[in-house]
Amino acid sequence: MPRRTSLRTHLPGRETRVGRIARLDTGRRARTGAPEVILGEGKDESHLLAILRTLAAAGRAAVVSRPTGAQSRALRRAARAKELPLQSLAGGRVWRLHGSPDGPPPVGVVGLVTAGTADVPVAEEARAVLASVGAETVEAYDVGVAGLHRVTRAVRQLERARPKVYLVFAGREGALPTVWAGLVRAPVVGIPTSVGYGRGGRGEAALNAMLQSCAPVAVVNIDGGVPAALFALQLLAGSRRAD
Amino acid sequence: MPRRTSLRTHLPGRETRVGRIARLDTGRRARTGAPEVILGEGKDESHLLAILRTLAAAGRAAVVSRPTGAQSRALRRAARAKELPLQSLAGGRVWRLHGSPDGPPPVGVVGLVTAGTADVPVAEEARAVLASVGAETVEAYDVGVAGLHRVTRAVRQLERARPKVYLVFAGREGALPTVWAGLVRAPVVGIPTSVGYGRGGRGEAALNAMLQSCAPVAVVNIDGGVPAALFALQLLAGSRRAD
Amino acid sequence: MPRRTSLRTHLPGRETRVGRIARLDTGRRARTGAPEVILGEGKDESHLLAILRTLAAAGRAAVVSRPTGAQSRALRRAARAKELPLQSLAGGRVWRLHGSPDGPPPVGVVGLVTAGTADVPVAEEARAVLASVGAETVEAYDVGVAGLHRVTRAVRQLERARPKVYLVFAGREGALPTVWAGLVRAPVVGIPTSVGYGRGGRGEAALNAMLQSCAPVAVVNIDGGVPAALFALQLLAGSRRAD
Amino acid sequence: MPRRTSLRTHLPGRETRVGRIARLDTGRRARTGAPEVILGEGKDESHLLAILRTLAAAGRAAVVSRPTGAQSRALRRAARAKELPLQSLAGGRVWRLHGSPDGPPPVGVVGLVTAGTADVPVAEEARAVLASVGAETVEAYDVGVAGLHRVTRAVRQLERARPKVYLVFAGREGALPTVWAGLVRAPVVGIPTSVGYGRGGRGEAALNAMLQSCAPVAVVNIDGGVPAALFALQLLAGSRRAD
Amino acid sequence: MPRRTSLRTHLPGRETRVGRIARLDTGRRARTGAPEVILGEGKDESHLLAILRTLAAAGRAAVVSRPTGAQSRALRRAARAKELPLQSLAGGRVWRLHGSPDGPPPVGVVGLVTAGTADVPVAEEARAVLASVGAETVEAYDVGVAGLHRVTRAVRQLERARPKVYLVFAGREGALPTVWAGLVRAPVVGIPTSVGYGRGGRGEAALNAMLQSCAPVAVVNIDGGVPAALFALQLLAGSRRAD
Amino acid sequence: MPRRTSLRTHLPGRETRVGRIARLDTGRRARTGAPEVILGEGKDESHLLAILRTLAAAGRAAVVSRPTGAQSRALRRAARAKELPLQSLAGGRVWRLHGSPDGPPPVGVVGLVTAGTADVPVAEEARAVLASVGAETVEAYDVGVAGLHRVTRAVRQLERARPKVYLVFAGREGALPTVWAGLVRAPVVGIPTSVGYGRGGRGEAALNAMLQSCAPVAVVNIDGGVPAALFALQLLAGSRRAD
Amino acid sequence: MPRRTSLRTHLPGRETRVGRIARLDTGRRARTGAPEVILGEGKDESHLLAILRTLAAAGRAAVVSRPTGAQSRALRRAARAKELPLQSLAGGRVWRLHGSPDGPPPVGVVGLVTAGTADVPVAEEARAVLASVGAETVEAYDVGVAGLHRVTRAVRQLERARPKVYLVFAGREGALPTVWAGLVRAPVVGIPTSVGYGRGGRGEAALNAMLQSCAPVAVVNIDGGVPAALFALQLLAGSRRAD
Amino acid sequence: MPRRTSLRTHLPGRETRVGRIARLDTGRRARTGAPEVILGEGKDESHLLAILRTLAAAGRAAVVSRPTGAQSRALRRAARAKELPLQSLAGGRVWRLHGSPDGPPPVGVVGLVTAGTADVPVAEEARAVLASVGAETVEAYDVGVAGLHRVTRAVRQLERARPKVYLVFAGREGALPTVWAGLVRAPVVGIPTSVGYGRGGRGEAALNAMLQSCAPVAVVNIDGGVPAALFALQLLAGSRRAD
Repeated sequence: MPRRTSLRTHLPGRETRVGRIARLDTGRRARTGAPEVILGEGKDESHLLAILRTLAAAGRAAVVSRPTGAQSRALRRAARAKELPLQSLAGGRVWRLHGSPDGPPPVGVVGLVTAGTADVPVAEEARAVLASVGAETVEAYDVGVAGLHRVTRAVRQLERARPKVYLVFAGREGALPTVWAGLVRAPVVGIPTSVGYGRGGRGEAALNAMLQSCAPVAVVNIDGGVPAALFALQLLAGSRRAD
Repeated sequence: MPRRTSLRTHLPGRETRVGRIARLDTGRRARTGAPEVILGEGKDESHLLAILRTLAAAGRAAVVSRPTGAQSRALRRAARAKELPLQSLAGGRVWRLHGSPDGPPPVGVVGLVTAGTADVPVAEEARAVLASVGAETVEAYDVGVAGLHRVTRAVRQLERARPKVYLVFAGREGALPTVWAGLVRAPVVGIPTSVGYGRGGRGEAALNAMLQSCAPVAVVNIDGGVPAALFALQLLAGSRRAD
Repeated sequence: MPRRTSLRTHLPGRETRVGRIARLDTGRRARTGAPEVILGEGKDESHLLAILRTLAAAGRAAVVSRPTGAQSRALRRAARAKELPLQSLAGGRVWRLHGSPDGPPPVGVVGLVTAGTADVPVAEEARAVLASVGAETVEAYDVGVAGLHRVTRAVRQLERARPKVYLVFAGREGALPTVWAGLVRAPVVGIPTSVGYGRGGRGEAALNAMLQSCAPVAVVNIDGGVPAALFALQLLAGSRRAD
Repeated sequence: MPRRTSLRTHLPGRETRVGRIARLDTGRRARTGAPEVILGEGKDESHLLAILRTLAAAGRAAVVSRPTGAQSRALRRAARAKELPLQSLAGGRVWRLHGSPDGPPPVGVVGLVTAGTADVPVAEEARAVLASVGAETVEAYDVGVAGLHRVTRAVRQLERARPKVYLVFAGREGALPTVWAGLVRAPVVGIPTSVGYGRGGRGEAALNAMLQSCAPVAVVNIDGGVPAALFALQLLAGSRRAD
Repeated sequence: MPRRTSLRTHLPGRETRVGRIARLDTGRRARTGAPEVILGEGKDESHLLAILRTLAAAGRAAVVSRPTGAQSRALRRAARAKELPLQSLAGGRVWRLHGSPDGPPPVGVVGLVTAGTADVPVAEEARAVLASVGAETVEAYDVGVAGLHRVTRAVRQLERARPKVYLVFAGREGALPTVWAGLVRAPVVGIPTSVGYGRGGRGEAALNAMLQSCAPVAVVNIDGGVPAALFALQLLAGSRRAD
Repeated sequence: MPRRTSLRTHLPGRETRVGRIARLDTGRRARTGAPEVILGEGKDESHLLAILRTLAAAGRAAVVSRPTGAQSRALRRAARAKELPLQSLAGGRVWRLHGSPDGPPPVGVVGLVTAGTADVPVAEEARAVLASVGAETVEAYDVGVAGLHRVTRAVRQLERARPKVYLVFAGREGALPTVWAGLVRAPVVGIPTSVGYGRGGRGEAALNAMLQSCAPVAVVNIDGGVPAALFALQLLAGSRRAD
Repeated sequence: MPRRTSLRTHLPGRETRVGRIARLDTGRRARTGAPEVILGEGKDESHLLAILRTLAAAGRAAVVSRPTGAQSRALRRAARAKELPLQSLAGGRVWRLHGSPDGPPPVGVVGLVTAGTADVPVAEEARAVLASVGAETVEAYDVGVAGLHRVTRAVRQLERARPKVYLVFAGREGALPTVWAGLVRAPVVGIPTSVGYGRGGRGEAALNAMLQSCAPVAVVNIDGGVPAALFALQLLAGSRRAD
Repeated sequence: MPRRTSLRTHLPGRETRVGRIARLDTGRRARTGAPEVILGEGKDESHLLAILRTLAAAGRAAVVSRPTGAQSRALRRAARAKELPLQSLAGGRVWRLHGSPDGPPPVGVVGLVTAGTADVPVAEEARAVLASVGAETVEAYDVGVAGLHRVTRAVRQLERARPKVYLVFAGREGALPTVWAGLVRAPVVGIPTSVGYGRGGRGEAALNAMLQSCAPVAVVNIDGGVPAALFALQLLAGSRRAD
């Protein structure tokens, strides 16, 4: 027989207003463990700066991802003028706002692997986010499956660090996460990169190939270096829970 | 200056032939921790049975996923005739071939959550695979976001079990993994289900919504209950590695 | 200067459990005004019946939409056996579970218009849902734009009832909502129907045409007679609010 | 027995020619209540100005939406030179041609809600159109579902104004309209915004998610702030009709 | 200076009601020259029969296209029982309702060409519609471009009849209309057929190829034998106009 | 019994080489009636000029369509320097190379109709090609279906010229060709234009809507003003054939 | 200076008529080396049999691919009744019509490789076509990349036969052709198979992955075992040409 | 009975590191015969130069394909400064790094054919790669199927060189590879080019048409001049193998 319940739920949370245009979820790190990441792309330049100023005034750390050209110039100006405690990472694809650590660093190593040299910038975005909260990484770049001996060698090299999760980046045909997941004992997250032209180019084929993988691979969106890093952080956090 | 190396790589592995039509990778569990899962759909019915007979003769365990109607009838016949040690799970969507455990059971709880009742069968596929190797699960089904109080209540209920990973199933607009990941401290894997009609139906909108999630969500393919379970197993395995 | 607030939110709600497989949001009508509608398609047949039995036991009204063939047979059996207070509507495309009205009937007329005869069944689904809560409707069916005089005549006919909203159904090239919205003084909701073959068939062209409309048209998904009716009900409810 | 009718239909209307290139439907406001809105994008720059000069000469009001860069520069020149009574709104995304009100202002409040800061510019387009005819609005911006407490708080805040309709803007996974419609008593129109990258980016995932919504949501096209505002105006007009 | 006009338009037309479900545009032939064609697919079986009975009672001719299986059976029963003056054409893909000619037969020959044998049924649909109003046709079937000598020979053969328009049917890669239009002096309408499997199959590649044709080809939808025939009839009608 | 034939086909034709990069089909006008049209877009700038120089040297007429920015500048230079007998048409979207008429002008009027002002440039491309060979046209621009009285008035106006074919241009929802074809006695060719944004924008919805038209409409590709004009010329040529 | 030439081309060829419905290109084998292959799917059953009877009467060999269920039954009947010299191959997916060899057998070995057991039926189609003209093959089936040691072992095994071309079949993520082409000295043709479910399923992901391959891979359509075999035959023929 | 084997595989290979960002597969030419080709597009400019410097230091030859604008400028600077032995080919679309031949030149002629002048640049990319390793080519450019006599003439011209493989380039409707493969005795590889606008433009229609070809055609991706050349080289290599 079905239970019937009348319920009233509490949603604890904190909210910091930035004028009319933003309500920062300043309790998220405490609630879920995820650091503050602000997607630059799409935001009005003045809105982005207003958000950062609010966070800086509160002494909070954050990361800005995918800044547009105009945003990058504004961030650079603000950094040079020491207006905001900003640092450029991954060749300017990610910016870090320094602030209070807001919790202990994560425990456990994350392995980063790319299929080609063109995937390196996306992997470096992930590495920047991981480094910004003190997570440890090991890397093997340009180990494409058209030269298999490179793959097997890189596996042996990285497995020595006993990573708790691998982030495997590949564009074009996106085969590397599948091959990698057939060789290692840790979960593999595939990150398709927008490498490749023609049909299936710009990461489309790679994304679908990873979704169709014969091996257990979970996927984030194309060029999703930052969400992959956040997922890895959640995973490291989860793995610390008492069994 | 670049290093140049001449290298020769060893790829240890085991292979069991099934006539001309299959080469079973019988070393995979030892190598990666993943159990043997055989995708039924697409395989010739006689080929599927030949593979299962070979595995049974060797005393090995396995799981058959997505059997077709004809395959299901054949499996049922083989089970009834005690020809093969088969057991139907998840309402016949998954079949288990009993055999040697081939390793200790995984440690850690997996949380299973569905947005609607129509997602339950896919979640039960995942649960069957997890149960087949002895993994522990907790579930909350039908907690769609159009009635938020159900979500927050289910979060509190499941968080008590301190899962190391959540598998969150949703069709239609696929919003639940995003909402869930904003409320918990463990990684969230989204599994779109083929629920919904019209544009974006059959799981298409849900998959894209999960790829676009504002919260850190990794994704497997539509109706991918089985790959999600395998990913969760890799994750439990990885989380046991010494830091 | 930004305001910072620490907040704790209450989410009042009611939840009725149906075994492990459903948590009915039994407070929704009170909260939003929407009646209980259960999408049949995709649900396990036994799950659907369990939900209806739970609702019937509580004396609540509901509507079942898009039942599959097997579900329809089961509903018919349950209706004939007087096991459940079910009634078939719109030629069996919708089923009504009789129960307590749970609020006063909506005030205001809804206009229903179809471009062709093939769109009539979807319009009748909407009419069934509207009728189930006592909403008043007027209809003009088969007024396609390839014979404009039919359109203008039907406009004059329906405008006499002074509808608060029009639901305009069209497949194929989906032009009728645009033409209609250029002629009337009430909001027009377009419902693409899965009529048409080849490229853009099955409602795809109609949906996109409505999204591209030169006139102010809002849209629901293909064959969305039921969601359109629910939207119209919300609109009637909203229009009663004191200004 | 079928009725057979020979009919002859009257289509009253007014038409104002602009050279060879435009025939303005100057009777539309009287016929349907919708203000004159001119889509800039796609029009030859000289054609756009010719249309505005014709309207200004007749003392009529209008709104220009989505001007291109070149059009914006031309509009700015014409405004500065006082050649045309133009005013830039929403950061230049919308331009208003001042003129005779052509009817009383609409009665009833429209609620505007955005999921993120990046959706604000599209919401402001809607607000500009609504304001141009004197409609009243209330707003809550940046209430994304990954921090649910923000949503529930904003609901309580806006419901106090008792809006007759909500326009809810969201990019990426587009979940907010669904969540919102589960909490309020007025109709919800979803406006997907072109926010997000990779698969399903640029508003594609958000649009499909809204079409697949579990709650009664009607939708306009991606970045359709202006058509959403027009639909809301029709709705306010319709709601004034005597029942 | 722009002209301003107040106008009032007459839309003469006739309308025959079929119960609530259809309003036949019985003035169309007189207005545009197009015969009455009723798309079967999508219509309720009882609705289709009601429409035909109304037309038969009025002694009018019509054509039914794309009947479903159930509709075909109903039409066959009605024909055998002499309930309706129906005749099966093109192997049952088209049905003709005999009635008054409603105008003189068209003047001018239509050429029908198919790339393969699998395209013949669609071409025969067009031929049936053309024959039903007395239009003259010449045919060359199975002249695919992988054996060019067949094409050039068929061109010479058909050009002798001096067709006023060619309907060229092709599936798969859809190249024939392009090749044909490079060799003849009359307009070429391409009709993609749903022949072919895999990517671009079911007529998709053929349709796009025809839209991309290097030669002047106009196109109708996939399997659009009937609309192509109607377009040819309009063309024959137009070509009789005094210059 | 099948006929078996051994055949040997003659393909008469003329070919004019332009270095290694082009083989002009200089017999096409004689063979099919179509004038020489050169698609600019995609061609190397030097290749385009080489082709024009070869044609000019032979005194032949031609039209260049869709020139890129760089090509346009080169053509303007060549025209100013009187290097080539070039003339800019349709605001520079088409260029005419003057030369020998190569046949008598076509007989019969072509009607050009656009749904909006933004479609005018594409219509003017068609008009330029038609004018370049001396074909007569009548036009009605900006007669969108959201103000029906404009449509019916324009029909009466253009029908007076008794066109042998209508070219109807529309972007966005692309409804005009369908409405138009329901009102006139000549064939209607629909030309979708790349007007509109969001889902179905850039002409996609308009193209599909025309393919799905309830009225007999043939279609060319998006922005296909030039191919539509060529098709109309073939049609005028075909209509002169003795019956 | 351009050459100008007047030319007249001969197209030698033979054509055998089958009633009105087919014109067999009976000179193709002599002209190009390709055997006669008839695609069953899409053809009227009576048309298929008529074609085969014509060929059999002339003593010619042929292959029927992708017969439908009804066609298969008809072929089986004709074979049993010894009406036609037909033989079922590849489990009935291909039928061979015995006849005169029409040329010497091809020289050179073709390697056939599949990624999984589910790809075997498509590979066997290719093998049947190759065998029907006497071409030699070697095979390695089920060598998926998730167990790399199987791949490298199979490479060594097949390379011993020194194939002139490899046909590599893979569904799901379609990675095998890329990996294979990185290890062997002969051209690799990838054949995507319709294996896999969800996004990218039914061969879509595999096709795109092969088009995006990092290694030199040419591709045929999904499930294109037969066209791949024909391409291989052309390749063997070409490789015999004197250098 | 199945064989069971325990296996250990050797993967011989060479790897040259370029800092952290690349691991060159310097044994590939020896293993498979393919020359070193580096895809420019997508790579960081500094990464590309680092790779070339490493190769140049080792005296190895390579080809750079699809350089971006910035990369092209950097390569030009490096070439002018004699920093690297680079040579621009195909109008700068391909760059050659001179180095040791690393094997004998390939034996056998490759035929290159284009449908239009706009396809020539892609064909020239292929020719540049073939020339860089000493392969012999013959060409016929601009032989589109709308003027068939050009095709048949070009066939006769090229067949005299007895090519072992044809690379046939076509955009728009992509029909040429099909027509060509019906006329010659060597394998045909189709290369769709990104020529054409509107639906199916940018090579999409051409690619699908080639996949749907009625004649045996294998395909590479859109604008895949370089991969097609590499495939041709593998084919020439394979054809030298002893039978």
